[in-house]
Amino acid sequence: MEHIFDTATALKPLGPNRYAGRPDPAYGNLAGPFGGTTSATLLRAVLEHPDCVGQAVNQNVNFCGAIGPEPFEIATRLIRAGRYLQHWNVELHQVDDIRATAHIVTAARKETFSHHAQTMPEVAGPEACNPLPEVSGFSAWLNRYEFRFCEGDAKFGTPRDTPLQPAKTSFWIKDRPARPLDALSLAALSDAFFLRLLHVRGALAPMGTVSLMTHVLATGDEIAAQGTTPLLGTADAIRFHGNFHDQQMQLWGKDGNLLASGSQIVWFKE
Amino acid sequence: MEHIFDTATALKPLGPNRYAGRPDPAYGNLAGPFGGTTSATLLRAVLEHPDCVGQAVNQNVNFCGAIGPEPFEIATRLIRAGRYLQHWNVELHQVDDIRATAHIVTAARKETFSHHAQTMPEVAGPEACNPLPEVSGFSAWLNRYEFRFCEGDAKFGTPRDTPLQPAKTSFWIKDRPARPLDALSLAALSDAFFLRLLHVRGALAPMGTVSLMTHVLATGDEIAAQGTTPLLGTADAIRFHGNFHDQQMQLWGKDGNLLASGSQIVWFKE
Repeated sequence: MEHIFDTATALKPLGPNRYAGRPDPAYGNLAGPFGGTTSATLLRAVLEHPDCVGQAVNQNVNFCGAIGPEPFEIATRLIRAGRYLQHWNVELHQVDDIRATAHIVTAARKETFSHHAQTMPEVAGPEACNPLPEVSGFSAWLNRYEFRFCEGDAKFGTPRDTPLQPAKTSFWIKDRPARPLDALSLAALSDAFFLRLLHVRGALAPMGTVSLMTHVLATGDEIAAQGTTPLLGTADAIRFHGNFHDQQMQLWGKDGNLLASGSQIVWFKE
Repeated sequence: MEHIFDTATALKPLGPNRYAGRPDPAYGNLAGPFGGTTSATLLRAVLEHPDCVGQAVNQNVNFCGAIGPEPFEIATRLIRAGRYLQHWNVELHQVDDIRATAHIVTAARKETFSHHAQTMPEVAGPEACNPLPEVSGFSAWLNRYEFRFCEGDAKFGTPRDTPLQPAKTSFWIKDRPARPLDALSLAALSDAFFLRLLHVRGALAPMGTVSLMTHVLATGDEIAAQGTTPLLGTADAIRFHGNFHDQQMQLWGKDGNLLASGSQIVWFKE
């Protein structure tokens, strides 16, 4: 049986460089779908393109407008194909608007100098950390992952916490139900970190990711070798100011290898 | 007299959404112009656009192909204008190819919750750190900045260093000759960090930035207040593997405020 993640990110080719898709309520967020499934769907359009060479090594996603429940179309454009890299531009169109765009770089990777300048943080293992309880009635996407926080937690009520809490958190995360890791689920996991403003103030408020960038450091064999083992995800922020904050993340896999790192900018109202 | 940075990033409007520019040898790098001037030129096209509202808050730049010495054209497209944000797509065309693209987000910013989750590193002041000597015959852009390393250094010879050196470095940096900071020079400074592979191996090799993302955390008044005071720049990397490495950076200004942070992916050959 197809995994719900593959159903939610499925695309139907409509012709050269055009695909049809639709948001899946199984990955619904407060307004529109979970950004991670949008990222994965944009990536799928490139990886399933007949002209695509190599694996995804970098993805920039821009959330331009709220995505509604309607069907959407994705348009791909191969901007540049060089000797080592391909640059792809991707646009998600819904009801006559561009709601999201992506710039995706693919490459066939070789064995080269390999070095970790930083090592995986030492934290309690997943079995020592309790999973977040399932939710009902909102943000169904939260139930599509098993979150086991090993640093910080996820208790967002009102009013805001005083004093402010740390922006840095770590969790073990995997798909629920389990699904072997691939490039698409890695793209989704890269956006599965809660916005740092929630952790710092401990309260919900109008906010959303505007642009995110994900670097894939793992080669395809490492991604496949991860299987259904949980990933260690760490996120932090530096500054909240003038309606925006930054947010950095790392996803670590088996043998302490960094699978992906990235950075995003988050809008918040007040 | 116009500052050399403004000459190097100048654009001439050719019509709606079209601008003409040319690389300036004063900011030349090993192959093509310094990426920071390309980033700044792409940003200038948006900021000088009659429809632009607000200040730049985020910039993704993709270096798709080597930029030659010829004149180029820049095309801008307002992808989405919402209540709070504008999303711009920018393309640099040269000799029938797309050589660079950018996705730029602008916003009119308000006073909101303001918080540093991390504080500026404590390092020796600029006057206690020697500036890098001027170079001649290569990478003229290096002479356009005053680099004062306060952690790590910049000695890149051959053969490669054994053992490997730390990826993390910090420097004080300012335009040379001095130029009051603005959004454009901040965009250029965001790409003025040497590639981490150079620091780690201490040796030159075929490599280049593929995609970078810069978050502007400073509001316009803070950027203006910086004047010609040097910024503290810190950069690090996590993993080098399979032809690519990640690289994170922060630029700190007066009063210990984070002006910008960002992340990039770097290609290297072996």
